Amino acid sequence: MGQTANLLGGGRGEADDPHSLVIRFPESEPLTTDAGVDIFPLTIAYQTYGALNADKSNAVLICHALTGDQHVANVNPVTDKPGWWSTMVGPGKPIDTERYFVICSNVVGGCMGSTGPASTNPRTGQPFGLELPVITIRDMVRAQAKLIDHLGIDQLFCVAGGSMGGMQVLQWAALFPRRVFCAMPIAAAARHSSQNIAFHEVGRQAIMADPEWRGGRYFENNVRPTKGLAVARMAAHITYMSDEALHRKFGRKLQDRESPTFSFDADFQIESYLRHQGSTFVERFDANSYLYVTRAMDYFDLAADYGGSLANAFKGSKTRFCIVSFTSDWLFPTSNSRAIVHALNAGGASVSFVEIDTDKGHDAFLLDVPELLATTRGFLESAARARGLPAPGAVK
Amino acid sequence: MGQTANLLGGGRGEADDPHSLVIRFPESEPLTTDAGVDIFPLTIAYQTYGALNADKSNAVLICHALTGDQHVANVNPVTDKPGWWSTMVGPGKPIDTERYFVICSNVVGGCMGSTGPASTNPRTGQPFGLELPVITIRDMVRAQAKLIDHLGIDQLFCVAGGSMGGMQVLQWAALFPRRVFCAMPIAAAARHSSQNIAFHEVGRQAIMADPEWRGGRYFENNVRPTKGLAVARMAAHITYMSDEALHRKFGRKLQDRESPTFSFDADFQIESYLRHQGSTFVERFDANSYLYVTRAMDYFDLAADYGGSLANAFKGSKTRFCIVSFTSDWLFPTSNSRAIVHALNAGGASVSFVEIDTDKGHDAFLLDVPELLATTRGFLESAARARGLPAPGAVK
Repeated sequence: MGQTANLLGGGRGEADDPHSLVIRFPESEPLTTDAGVDIFPLTIAYQTYGALNADKSNAVLICHALTGDQHVANVNPVTDKPGWWSTMVGPGKPIDTERYFVICSNVVGGCMGSTGPASTNPRTGQPFGLELPVITIRDMVRAQAKLIDHLGIDQLFCVAGGSMGGMQVLQWAALFPRRVFCAMPIAAAARHSSQNIAFHEVGRQAIMADPEWRGGRYFENNVRPTKGLAVARMAAHITYMSDEALHRKFGRKLQDRESPTFSFDADFQIESYLRHQGSTFVERFDANSYLYVTRAMDYFDLAADYGGSLANAFKGSKTRFCIVSFTSDWLFPTSNSRAIVHALNAGGASVSFVEIDTDKGHDAFLLDVPELLATTRGFLESAARARGLPAPGAVK
Repeated sequence: MGQTANLLGGGRGEADDPHSLVIRFPESEPLTTDAGVDIFPLTIAYQTYGALNADKSNAVLICHALTGDQHVANVNPVTDKPGWWSTMVGPGKPIDTERYFVICSNVVGGCMGSTGPASTNPRTGQPFGLELPVITIRDMVRAQAKLIDHLGIDQLFCVAGGSMGGMQVLQWAALFPRRVFCAMPIAAAARHSSQNIAFHEVGRQAIMADPEWRGGRYFENNVRPTKGLAVARMAAHITYMSDEALHRKFGRKLQDRESPTFSFDADFQIESYLRHQGSTFVERFDANSYLYVTRAMDYFDLAADYGGSLANAFKGSKTRFCIVSFTSDWLFPTSNSRAIVHALNAGGASVSFVEIDTDKGHDAFLLDVPELLATTRGFLESAARARGLPAPGAVK
């Protein structure tokens, strides 16, 4: 695929010339980061679906997860696969693009067109690499706010997302409460746990242990740390699934053979599945971006920014919240979502909470889980009525 | 440390010249493996504690886990640290060396003196490396049986061990029911789960992705795949602990600093702890051994050897079993132990089952967990009475 070749090669295709809408802010409008360093020029790559209504009250901002991107509901230009939330977003879907104006931007630090380590620094002609300051979830949200300003939208009807996307939703609601009418953080947490930091650290060490990482300057050397990045992805991928689902899907089934080979080949289906996950991932994701985006998640601790009290982060919020967790998600378990619910209650916010029974693990937020789709549809319907948005098909 | 240097260097110290007892079987007494290949000459490195009684009825065989060794209760010659089960084994301890004759051998495939990939193949003068056939848990047990034969012991009073050690205990009881008076598999499973195979595969891929692995021939090239092995250890180490214990022990505490550095340094204590686990592990363990021993665990599926019925594996067994699991062990969860208990009940065996409430995760079997120590002491006391062993201090 041409695009894949671009992502891998010296041109770094999507990172510099994404197949999506792009705003290139002038150098005079930098992104000031939590690390205290300005990023400029700042570029935000994004997609939109549907139409913004006259009073700009129907915008839904979707925040993507660690390895996600802005291609929510269109064919992905790198993988040629459907957008990552095609089950959720589209005409007649729960996030109905005939009713809402849906926006999703690639996070800062990513590799699909927003400024990230693979982007060319126009001042040097070289990739930013590790010269880019470390990014936080709040930096991602600040960058999105600049996009929303640019689009002339004062208040978002909804901000929604799963996993790291859910972290951004919480950050939006805390940082810009007046600008978020309703919020839906799915399979998320208000802070990254010690165990999750540990898994991320293993991934980063796997990348940095790859000699082709070259201290982060692999593009300049025409190499890429694909082996390390594949190992990082494999380790992470296990955490996205549940033990039950792995047992149901793979069990101890052998891969295209009758009996074990007594070797280190991929005898078991789960092994060849994992190897496949690793090898396809490196064709679509940048290793340095993986470092930056995992680090942003590790640093996330919303309560710490509000005197140690998560309730303070949401005090007096008028935003309507719907919190969703999954029974078999051990990476962002229900206890994390309950902590958010308690804080919202303590802060006096309006909150619904749904724990969905599924064996699909953390990845359930991405999958065709009917109860998730129905919950989202119902929550948005109710919020749309409260916001005074016309029903789909109503005379406008 | 001299020994460490030896393990790392060309001489491969402990692998060829262990600081323990050793039996070197003649070439005419090979180990026939499940892979269908004979290993010869076979060497078994082992330690013993206490004294064998006159009728050889007080022998306790301890089976070690993935990265364990024969140094159960003496200072480890490589790490200079106390033996891995010093809490459990010793004078007056639950496995009382004043009463029992305790034996532990390094598993075949290991790197502490029993034949493994780091051992010199006397026929070539080079390390066996990947020429060694892939080993199974049953091969490990067959090798131990040769040692027990050599010691002239017909029936072991007890076979005990945790994790992979527990797999060996189950295999002993199934393969040699008459030779095992009582058995104590702790935090074990009768088959390795899909999730566990997945974690092992990540570790193996991390090792094999390290260019210094050199297709397994790193000793010959005077290098070692330490980075890959460290990543494998870090990933595995997370699975040995519980989320709760990590939260209690580390939480989101920073390492020797007041605020995050906004870098990829080990900002969080959990990160520097993990890096330490990785870097110390590579000083004591051989990368190829890690491949072999993880593979043995993956292949373990006791029921599969008995027509798919675990109960058949224990049918008519006279062995007394005590099965132990830990509430926070998510690698070998209680459900695995319950499956063993059900099979033993169905097979008509004598079985006790204890689930110990602790937040210490899978590693609890190695730690100073009072309920584990008390359970072991009580189970062995009762079995010793049934076996007619004199009480400690009784006139013999």
